[in-house]
Amino acid sequence: MKKIQGGITAAKGFEAAAVAAGIKYENRLDLALIYSEKPCKIAGTFTTNIIKAAPVKWDQAIVEGKKKCQAVVVNAGIANACTGEEGMQCCVETAQTVANALNLEREEILIGSTGVIGMPMPMEKLKKGIEILAKKKAKGYEAGKEAARAIMTTDTCEKEIAVTFEIDGQVITIGGMAKGSGMIHPNMCTMLSFITTDACISKKALQQALHMDVEETYNMISVDGDTSTNDTVLLLANGMAGNKKIKYGTKEWELFCDALHEVNLTLAKRIAEDGEGATALLEVIVEGASSKEQARKLAKSVICSNLTKTAIAGHDANWGRILCAMGYAGVEFFPERTHLSIKSKEGELCLVEGGVAVSYSEEKATKILSEPEVTVLIHIGEGEETATAWGCDLTHGYIDINADYRS
Amino acid sequence: MKKIQGGITAAKGFEAAAVAAGIKYENRLDLALIYSEKPCKIAGTFTTNIIKAAPVKWDQAIVEGKKKCQAVVVNAGIANACTGEEGMQCCVETAQTVANALNLEREEILIGSTGVIGMPMPMEKLKKGIEILAKKKAKGYEAGKEAARAIMTTDTCEKEIAVTFEIDGQVITIGGMAKGSGMIHPNMCTMLSFITTDACISKKALQQALHMDVEETYNMISVDGDTSTNDTVLLLANGMAGNKKIKYGTKEWELFCDALHEVNLTLAKRIAEDGEGATALLEVIVEGASSKEQARKLAKSVICSNLTKTAIAGHDANWGRILCAMGYAGVEFFPERTHLSIKSKEGELCLVEGGVAVSYSEEKATKILSEPEVTVLIHIGEGEETATAWGCDLTHGYIDINADYRS
Repeated sequence: MKKIQGGITAAKGFEAAAVAAGIKYENRLDLALIYSEKPCKIAGTFTTNIIKAAPVKWDQAIVEGKKKCQAVVVNAGIANACTGEEGMQCCVETAQTVANALNLEREEILIGSTGVIGMPMPMEKLKKGIEILAKKKAKGYEAGKEAARAIMTTDTCEKEIAVTFEIDGQVITIGGMAKGSGMIHPNMCTMLSFITTDACISKKALQQALHMDVEETYNMISVDGDTSTNDTVLLLANGMAGNKKIKYGTKEWELFCDALHEVNLTLAKRIAEDGEGATALLEVIVEGASSKEQARKLAKSVICSNLTKTAIAGHDANWGRILCAMGYAGVEFFPERTHLSIKSKEGELCLVEGGVAVSYSEEKATKILSEPEVTVLIHIGEGEETATAWGCDLTHGYIDINADYRS
Repeated sequence: MKKIQGGITAAKGFEAAAVAAGIKYENRLDLALIYSEKPCKIAGTFTTNIIKAAPVKWDQAIVEGKKKCQAVVVNAGIANACTGEEGMQCCVETAQTVANALNLEREEILIGSTGVIGMPMPMEKLKKGIEILAKKKAKGYEAGKEAARAIMTTDTCEKEIAVTFEIDGQVITIGGMAKGSGMIHPNMCTMLSFITTDACISKKALQQALHMDVEETYNMISVDGDTSTNDTVLLLANGMAGNKKIKYGTKEWELFCDALHEVNLTLAKRIAEDGEGATALLEVIVEGASSKEQARKLAKSVICSNLTKTAIAGHDANWGRILCAMGYAGVEFFPERTHLSIKSKEGELCLVEGGVAVSYSEEKATKILSEPEVTVLIHIGEGEETATAWGCDLTHGYIDINADYRS
């Protein structure tokens, strides 16, 4: 597997476009199109929030059906959530407009929305934007990057990745883009993430690969503990790489899963490190667990703890807050067997052995915690299972963004 | 029932004292004693955190035993949590020192600690402080108030309450003090809260009254979602009111429960409104639920949402974040039946009917949300059950306190 430049237009046959449609923001890209020359098999995972945005319901119906799909349209600024019947009608019109412009069926169009909950969508602006996108769509790096930029809200940078790998000498590409910065606490799903691949692969193999991997990637990040109404991951495969069809459970499927994992992991970590107001990416690794579930719950409890997050913001080796967060994770473990170290580019330092403090240099601890990427390594001395979760620090920036931004 | 001035020294036979023992803070009260002339029946609830502070384990053993108790010693500054065998030994020595000074048995002494996790307790300072407390203990309002001040950490004010009620013409008093500001997300228990009463009451009636009421009071508040290692509520009854013994399930017991509820509710709300950095008390009432459990989970999910809390800080009527938080609460409900209003001294305003926005004045909404006490009233249109939860806004102050304070 090899990382290459690019995102959703990296795989064969995929095009993209972006436009400033003025949906909520002024003078910035806010509407994106992903288009595939050939119909795609699709897999998707969606928010578990009871309140599901209209586009989530629209996409779910299409992904659960047998339909293939050829285009995705995504807007930033308005979430089209809590908008009732009108919101669903808006999805129908949006899909119809894209279908007309690209000569497709309405049910071949997927929709993504992110932004303020409860506001109505300005349909005329949206329709005008779609007309422009349909003419503007293009192959290549720049088009993909513009699309990645158009789906941002409080994000400070685009989030893209592309990788290639080979099956029987045939090069297959997987590329993706994502957005997410606040209201980030994916549960069985994620914020908006769009992955394209030219792999020829069965629907079951595609869906299983996505479902499994989401548990280890998007579902292991949190910015603020708030699970969004719009979380969506869509994976589109158009089969243009020319490989023999990948089937579920084969060696080739495992290669595909590995490459997909790299794409998902990169996008998930980029969302965590671009958390609203964040100055540091916090990685928490739990080792020595007796089950995967136990390891995951402990790691996630630590990255979600406001007190741990503020300690990281203050570069303070406040390990007591980390153990405290493990203690209320809802799973059993033995505090007296717990070891804890911190590490970053500045080195590694053990703080806790057998549940109590060792003698360590506060100065060195502060130095390690002042880096933009910090890892907390926890060993609970029970078994062989591990899990990793990613979050960020909690700073004044988060308050600034959210005491004002109507999201 | 009637509110009176005072706290833990309001009930007959209770004395208190406070001293600046220099345990961690300089030149401020940090060690408190509660003493009863006569042995007390005791009830207690404790943190569900797997990591339990040494004093929590000490108290649990005493409360679960048949022992009566006559004194409680509480320090602020050091939590005596994650301190291993040494921490338990420290409890033994502390209790023994109090017992010697007051001519009691070691097992008649309860202990409370709050502050930094992982630091060792300076035993010599603690012992000197206890000697002073034993001589200084006194009846009356001032002694109780000083004790309430001595147990504070990041709290900005003492939290006290006392009420009286009558059974067969006999006046019974219940008084209490509490501390709590950060690491507040009680689960089946609370932060430090100490309640004294002169009621004559059976052990079962006492414990049942406390257990039931904790679910509706301390367990319904959250400041930051972090369940502490030290959460403790202790209820001491010395029987000096001279009433006929109150038995579980009787009419008299219900009177006692009502008065206890007033004490617990007041202390719990005062903790929420004094949340670290808070400028507003946020009350969330869920009505029309089909079960108590559903109502509680929805209300707690809203008060715990960082995005809702920052919106309140910004006086922003961002109801989408509230519905979003209900959506990930982990219980089913019908968004399309949900009504939502906000209210404060400035009036009441409906924002959502049937899950979608109504037309309302943003100006009036901002005015309502600019008050120091704000209520969100939610009706989910299913049944008759209700629940109320209390929290606070999330401000720059929380970041300031926790990026530095080693707790």
